[in-house]
Amino acid sequence: MSQPLRIAIAGLGTVGAGVVKMVQTHGDLLTRRAGRPLEIVAVSARSRGKDRGIDLGAFDWEDDPVALAKRADVDLLVEVMGGEDGPAKACVEAALAAGKHVVTANKAMLALHGQAMAEQAETTGAALRFEAAVAGGIPIVKALTEGLAGNGISRVMGVMNGTCNYILTKMEATGESYGEVLKEAQALGYAEADPTVDVGGIDAAHKLSLLAATAFGTRVAFDHVEIEGIERITLQDIKNAADMGYKIKLLGVAQQNSDGIEQRMQPCLVPTASPLGQLEGVNNMVVVDGDFIGQTVYQGPGAGEGPTASAILGDIMDIARGLIIPAFGQPAKGLTKPNTSSKGSDAAYYLRFSLTDAPGTLAKLASILGAHNVSINRMHQYGHDGKTAPLVIVTHATPRQPLDQALAEICALSASNAEPVALRIESL
Amino acid sequence: MSQPLRIAIAGLGTVGAGVVKMVQTHGDLLTRRAGRPLEIVAVSARSRGKDRGIDLGAFDWEDDPVALAKRADVDLLVEVMGGEDGPAKACVEAALAAGKHVVTANKAMLALHGQAMAEQAETTGAALRFEAAVAGGIPIVKALTEGLAGNGISRVMGVMNGTCNYILTKMEATGESYGEVLKEAQALGYAEADPTVDVGGIDAAHKLSLLAATAFGTRVAFDHVEIEGIERITLQDIKNAADMGYKIKLLGVAQQNSDGIEQRMQPCLVPTASPLGQLEGVNNMVVVDGDFIGQTVYQGPGAGEGPTASAILGDIMDIARGLIIPAFGQPAKGLTKPNTSSKGSDAAYYLRFSLTDAPGTLAKLASILGAHNVSINRMHQYGHDGKTAPLVIVTHATPRQPLDQALAEICALSASNAEPVALRIESL
Repeated sequence: MSQPLRIAIAGLGTVGAGVVKMVQTHGDLLTRRAGRPLEIVAVSARSRGKDRGIDLGAFDWEDDPVALAKRADVDLLVEVMGGEDGPAKACVEAALAAGKHVVTANKAMLALHGQAMAEQAETTGAALRFEAAVAGGIPIVKALTEGLAGNGISRVMGVMNGTCNYILTKMEATGESYGEVLKEAQALGYAEADPTVDVGGIDAAHKLSLLAATAFGTRVAFDHVEIEGIERITLQDIKNAADMGYKIKLLGVAQQNSDGIEQRMQPCLVPTASPLGQLEGVNNMVVVDGDFIGQTVYQGPGAGEGPTASAILGDIMDIARGLIIPAFGQPAKGLTKPNTSSKGSDAAYYLRFSLTDAPGTLAKLASILGAHNVSINRMHQYGHDGKTAPLVIVTHATPRQPLDQALAEICALSASNAEPVALRIESL
Repeated sequence: MSQPLRIAIAGLGTVGAGVVKMVQTHGDLLTRRAGRPLEIVAVSARSRGKDRGIDLGAFDWEDDPVALAKRADVDLLVEVMGGEDGPAKACVEAALAAGKHVVTANKAMLALHGQAMAEQAETTGAALRFEAAVAGGIPIVKALTEGLAGNGISRVMGVMNGTCNYILTKMEATGESYGEVLKEAQALGYAEADPTVDVGGIDAAHKLSLLAATAFGTRVAFDHVEIEGIERITLQDIKNAADMGYKIKLLGVAQQNSDGIEQRMQPCLVPTASPLGQLEGVNNMVVVDGDFIGQTVYQGPGAGEGPTASAILGDIMDIARGLIIPAFGQPAKGLTKPNTSSKGSDAAYYLRFSLTDAPGTLAKLASILGAHNVSINRMHQYGHDGKTAPLVIVTHATPRQPLDQALAEICALSASNAEPVALRIESL
């Protein structure tokens, strides 16, 4: 095992540069730990001349990432270009086809093509690893596939998008609106110019679908994830939640129900005193329930150069040490598409309505909820301008389906000014 | 890799029985995940006839754990007998000498003999794994040796003894005294009849010494750990801490200083709002600082049948999948005894004195502190019976050595009724 592990890196953005820095900083330490040297032999990126603050002089340069992946002197490809298709997919497929190990941070690509790639890796005996794709530096894929491998897993949930958590905790801390904080996050580089993938919950849903496959031994089923973003959360919602002892978090939940698997990425109310409720800023947190171990909680930085590079190095070190396990912890060819739990689990909900202040409106609303067996726990009507009355209702536990029917009927009322906001109150 | 991994279990107490239950419950799942079956072939325990709620009929019985370890049809020995020497050590040594893998939960044994055992394992090519020895079910050894393997680690700290955390959080919640809560913990089975190893900090110090070796690539140096138990913590200390925004925790800290490694297991004040401050009951938590990843936090049940068995199964699954890495993450023969940091790191301290109420006492105390450059941040003297005055002082940051000198001088005063209590205020 004293042969070096020869590495190619496709993509030299923040993360790719971070991987180079780690290998250059800790060369001797990594060699002692892995029992063999890690050697970066070649790299590829869009722009060769760009100053990345690292010395690339010792590495071969390839303009074409597919050519990089196919090089005879490469054992392992690090794919950190991003993009669910295109060059990222092409070079990963080329590497796997050639029996070369792949370590990737590309959640979008794996959410769509992970199953096919995992099968291809198994066919050629390559490893396909993706710790960096989920929850940044937190070694949560490793915990699920290895540390907790003796357990049946009943639920994986967490906060997996640092941008959203930053926005929500900053709104609460400063009293600024969603729009104001989003602008600041963009200025700080925490949010993209087009923030949809983050604030719309899509990025986090990609991650959740990968964790669900890993936890439950099913195929990645991104199209089964119910997704809702944080765009409609107001400061008033955050204050209302706080008054009741809750925080609003973009929470992903993947849970094994009796009739199948439920996967949701949506803003939820969680108890302020819980680990999830305490999570601030750009951190991520994943909570896992296993049948023998009970509940374990994993927290750490969800993004950024160092944390993401750390996760990639963890995967590289495993491969250097000879650990080749199936991408999702079980042979990919044996994985089946999960049944989606049809009814989901019951919960209490926080509802916010915007209603025209007209006699009889509240009665109509209450009777619609009652007709669908949605029972009211508390209700609060806020001071208003005389035209539009903001009304907040907290329900008792209810299935989602009748609630959605009730909300659709309420939304159709002439007195309804906007689609109601319905946030699940998650019991942890 | 379709040959079964043949397992022997030495010790059928709670944990050993838990391992049997997990293998029996999840046989098919474990086979899919490991790529080969796990097969328990033989067991050993003190009493053959005892009802353990599990069916041992399929396993061979050995009265002698050393004979069990030497069986030709065994690939891996699970040692869950406990005891730092005696049969536990004998059977682990016999297994390693024969090139058989060992998975153990025995922190006391490894704290004393871990280095020799790790060297022996490397000589014969066996794996020696001990996830269950530290922080129960939390896969923290895996995180340090594998997930974070790309990082230089600067600090590992945490709450690693569930009994102590239970006692301290229960005292605060109910207002009961240390002695009352200890009795309850004993009745509930959370504390042993002789609780010294737990409440004295020794059990947690064993764990810390293993984490330190793993984090810093040094030999296990249990004799370098500064140990202080929770026996002298009063309800008043807990209340005083709470008033200032802190919780008292039995906190282990292993930290790389410029002049060596500092290892402490002692009751400390930590911010109430921090993850460590929020940790309640018998849970454990470990916080790791790495140079690229930053800070990650791991929380979970620190003891008990299911969590401990889960950790053992995690190790077994790794070995079944072919992962053989050095016990402490680097070749044992290359590990050197750490330098113990001579001065340690500065901190503010919470001091509680019990003084005879006589004129001039406070002046003497204050002048002793001042003479050692220990500067007072706040001070509070409590209502008293006229004879003994309890006095609480919070210092500014100070090195430990002059503080200890000052405390010794104060303790020697005729007005001093008891050894002062000094609790470090840990900045996280």
